[in-house]
Amino acid sequence: MSVTPEQAAEIEALRAETRPTLRATSAGMEAHLYTAYPVLDHGFVRVVDYMGDDAAICQAARVSYGRGTKSVQNDEGLIRYLMRHWHSTPFEMCEIKLHVKLPVFVARQWIRHRTANVNEYSARYSILDREFYIPERDALAAQSVVNNQGRGEALTGEEADRVLRYLRDDAMRAYDHYEEMISSDGQQGLARELARMNLPANIYTQWYWKVDLHNLLHFLRLRADAHAQYEIRVYADEICKVVADWVPFAFRAFEDYRMGGATLSSTALDCVRRMLKGEEVTQETSGMSKGEWREFQAVLG
Amino acid sequence: MSVTPEQAAEIEALRAETRPTLRATSAGMEAHLYTAYPVLDHGFVRVVDYMGDDAAICQAARVSYGRGTKSVQNDEGLIRYLMRHWHSTPFEMCEIKLHVKLPVFVARQWIRHRTANVNEYSARYSILDREFYIPERDALAAQSVVNNQGRGEALTGEEADRVLRYLRDDAMRAYDHYEEMISSDGQQGLARELARMNLPANIYTQWYWKVDLHNLLHFLRLRADAHAQYEIRVYADEICKVVADWVPFAFRAFEDYRMGGATLSSTALDCVRRMLKGEEVTQETSGMSKGEWREFQAVLG
Amino acid sequence: MSVTPEQAAEIEALRAETRPTLRATSAGMEAHLYTAYPVLDHGFVRVVDYMGDDAAICQAARVSYGRGTKSVQNDEGLIRYLMRHWHSTPFEMCEIKLHVKLPVFVARQWIRHRTANVNEYSARYSILDREFYIPERDALAAQSVVNNQGRGEALTGEEADRVLRYLRDDAMRAYDHYEEMISSDGQQGLARELARMNLPANIYTQWYWKVDLHNLLHFLRLRADAHAQYEIRVYADEICKVVADWVPFAFRAFEDYRMGGATLSSTALDCVRRMLKGEEVTQETSGMSKGEWREFQAVLG
Amino acid sequence: MSVTPEQAAEIEALRAETRPTLRATSAGMEAHLYTAYPVLDHGFVRVVDYMGDDAAICQAARVSYGRGTKSVQNDEGLIRYLMRHWHSTPFEMCEIKLHVKLPVFVARQWIRHRTANVNEYSARYSILDREFYIPERDALAAQSVVNNQGRGEALTGEEADRVLRYLRDDAMRAYDHYEEMISSDGQQGLARELARMNLPANIYTQWYWKVDLHNLLHFLRLRADAHAQYEIRVYADEICKVVADWVPFAFRAFEDYRMGGATLSSTALDCVRRMLKGEEVTQETSGMSKGEWREFQAVLG
Repeated sequence: MSVTPEQAAEIEALRAETRPTLRATSAGMEAHLYTAYPVLDHGFVRVVDYMGDDAAICQAARVSYGRGTKSVQNDEGLIRYLMRHWHSTPFEMCEIKLHVKLPVFVARQWIRHRTANVNEYSARYSILDREFYIPERDALAAQSVVNNQGRGEALTGEEADRVLRYLRDDAMRAYDHYEEMISSDGQQGLARELARMNLPANIYTQWYWKVDLHNLLHFLRLRADAHAQYEIRVYADEICKVVADWVPFAFRAFEDYRMGGATLSSTALDCVRRMLKGEEVTQETSGMSKGEWREFQAVLG
Repeated sequence: MSVTPEQAAEIEALRAETRPTLRATSAGMEAHLYTAYPVLDHGFVRVVDYMGDDAAICQAARVSYGRGTKSVQNDEGLIRYLMRHWHSTPFEMCEIKLHVKLPVFVARQWIRHRTANVNEYSARYSILDREFYIPERDALAAQSVVNNQGRGEALTGEEADRVLRYLRDDAMRAYDHYEEMISSDGQQGLARELARMNLPANIYTQWYWKVDLHNLLHFLRLRADAHAQYEIRVYADEICKVVADWVPFAFRAFEDYRMGGATLSSTALDCVRRMLKGEEVTQETSGMSKGEWREFQAVLG
Repeated sequence: MSVTPEQAAEIEALRAETRPTLRATSAGMEAHLYTAYPVLDHGFVRVVDYMGDDAAICQAARVSYGRGTKSVQNDEGLIRYLMRHWHSTPFEMCEIKLHVKLPVFVARQWIRHRTANVNEYSARYSILDREFYIPERDALAAQSVVNNQGRGEALTGEEADRVLRYLRDDAMRAYDHYEEMISSDGQQGLARELARMNLPANIYTQWYWKVDLHNLLHFLRLRADAHAQYEIRVYADEICKVVADWVPFAFRAFEDYRMGGATLSSTALDCVRRMLKGEEVTQETSGMSKGEWREFQAVLG
Repeated sequence: MSVTPEQAAEIEALRAETRPTLRATSAGMEAHLYTAYPVLDHGFVRVVDYMGDDAAICQAARVSYGRGTKSVQNDEGLIRYLMRHWHSTPFEMCEIKLHVKLPVFVARQWIRHRTANVNEYSARYSILDREFYIPERDALAAQSVVNNQGRGEALTGEEADRVLRYLRDDAMRAYDHYEEMISSDGQQGLARELARMNLPANIYTQWYWKVDLHNLLHFLRLRADAHAQYEIRVYADEICKVVADWVPFAFRAFEDYRMGGATLSSTALDCVRRMLKGEEVTQETSGMSKGEWREFQAVLG
């Protein structure tokens, strides 16, 4: 379960009451505010606050006055231009604050994105809940044999059974012992900051994470990518849906230029030019290594 | 003149129309939104957008749900605790976006605060206005004789007259030549990115500047300080007024612990302890240099 | 064991061969280079590279030429002045690169210092070693009863026995299962990026961590402090020894102004002034909360 | 003149004396250390210190021990892989410190790269020299008529004469008045922090600028680009030469994947695929705007 009944009630209450503001608002984003979107077995992501919209990007780009009341066609064109030419500062003028519940091993990848603000639930101060990520059976990927960092097919049969049993049993036992160690029932009780070291990396934590749109899109480019680990990609995918409603022009440009685009090296561009002139180019004549050639072929589809 | 009649009308229109939002709002801040507060002879500072309030600081500190509905007394106590113990991350959860019009030499100091987002009016792309900062007569400070970086008394009489005449005349002539150089009236016209090099550092520029509350308070601590250059301090002072209304708890804690506080060295603390025991401590017996002792005396007032 | 015999041999070889350089060198730091200083039961910290010395700080402060050949007395005075007045940019001109082996729960605290460069051992790509932090018996602190975040006395007797047994047994079992899950012996083998989620937070990881001196000192101020968790403090303490030899002037100033100093609020300074005039000030008449008053008393020692 | 005879002598002395170090050294970089390479009419760039080399990038990527003694072929392949896949953190493990003398309007562009450390010559504290950038005649570009931000052909004849006369005369007059204003000869003398506001943006300043290799390459990608303003591009070009000798593998990869490469959007990739299948694609059938199509045609050369 992602949220408790109390939390669900609180979210409902927050969504029930609007107040007037003079600030720019994004109707698409207001529809998402506070709602907890489930991710994995116990996680969620929800927007807690935001600043700005597509018009704010244009406004900063123009260092103009007002909320950016230029025609839609112009705004989208400008945003596409900014994205295409890596003019990143106007995208920094939008900000989002998320509340995320996620397994610790996902949090450790996530935190590597340094240009963001974070407040995490403190296991020095508080007691962690008994909630662990246990993958779905079809997410039990085998180690890839072609790629050190990747995943192969899903495990099946007894091997899958055994993995799930280990993950569940070890988590439960570790948590039992965590509880016993911090218990002051007839004893002193180990400090929480020490007892937590017994807990495995699939335990859930949560944090507030605030980031500007430019850095968020960079995060999404890396983490919503097919090469990202599945368990962080599902968070990125959920965030993509929200961003698409928040800043639709910026998100469409992002999809076209970043997610769906590709960077070709000088050598690769040269190959494309030769091929367009009718030359038959092979890996041997391309000037690329086998790895690069394989990636190049994939880009050309 | 700080704002044109068109800008004044636009600001009025922006302030006339509210829209509903589910986000946290700060009533104190809504009262300031968009209004351009004049600074120096042609500058201004105005709030264009904001995110969060005092409750958002507490909410992040508690990684809790909702808008932070705990009693006011508790929130202020928590904020004071966070400020006192340099727990800075919860203050990063509030964000402000300012539109500032300021002389270039002030902008060059301001930009040294790196953890912020900036979009500045581009003199490569656009033509700068004929607006220069000319100090008030009583701001024409002489070079300090005790402090390399500081100011002494204001110049008077003919010396003041001459300074004002130089500043005005040189600015006007430089701008006349700027205009002539970029003019394509019967000629090619020099590129704007080159012509601007003729303009002195008291010309006005403007930018959007977005920063989180923690970094804003750090900026204010340095720039609203008595040792800051007068021309940036007046901007910082104006921003202080806005922040006091936006996050009153955080601002009061900031005033008590940062602006009005002082850091004493190990040596200085030792002197205080000795003095409280009745010992007569002099610079010679203090273990401090003359400079440190002078600063220490100033702190003990 | 912190380093393997192979690693020890490699470190010895690295320390055996010098090469000429035109760069500034720090004799104190050269003596530490590459050596792995043991921390906790299997961890270490070692300097892998560095840039700059005390003279480099002064050189940047003076934006002068050369290696900073001014007299030692002047350099130390300048460095103390910079530290006292929070002029932080010259301290950013020195850089250090550390190789650290540390438990994951320590790494998670450490990484919160964002202004640094990090490359961590990848558990997606590689297999983690069977090395876990098991505290010394006298480090098994009980949860503090006066401070939510702190530690009380050490556990003793059967309670200590049980804690150590849990930590050891759970770690070994988790690692056994980790090995079994990734094993492709007659089966597919679970992806490493998934199997690692079974491992507890006291497993060791390692990383390269590069940071400038200003941000390092900020890290040390927080993490070598008495309120920091013991398990990160021992790393900070070890780094302090290295820094003291690398930039002796800067480190002495840091000790005096930061580690041994204290920031007094406006209210606290007012109390000091009243006390120095002979007034009897109590918590009730101080204007401070009980918590602040207690901290104030501690500072006055 | 870029450096004074005293500075030239000091640089010579610095280059005359080597000392032993245990650190990794880059022979290519040692050859450049301290030497001031002239840029524009009075500027220069020179390397004051550095940390790391190509092997350090690989070492961090492998989180391995030692100086990275793997075979050259492997190291270059790894570096190309890292560059191609935007694995930026290993490149952050190298650091460079530059001393740069540059016109103020160039400094204002440069400082927008925030992830760097800077100490600039202080015009609050010190007196600026009478040195101004006056462009070469063939650098007096006209405003571009096709591109708001760009340059057209060089001005000629009387228009060029007049521009050069304005730039020279206004600079000299502004400096004369600056000197008079700060003069305390029989008067008080205006504070330096105020007098500097009379100086135009082509006056030279200088600073120490320290940056990691990843952020340096990002700077070079933007500033050594054909669309960058000429006056900053010449600095970037000079730095490129140094970096090519410092980390030759990284620089070659940078040239291939970044400087000579191009990012194609999803739409552009689709067009390439269609063209490779023999389809005649025009702007109308491409799905691109006219601007995008023009840029796409330029990439396909």
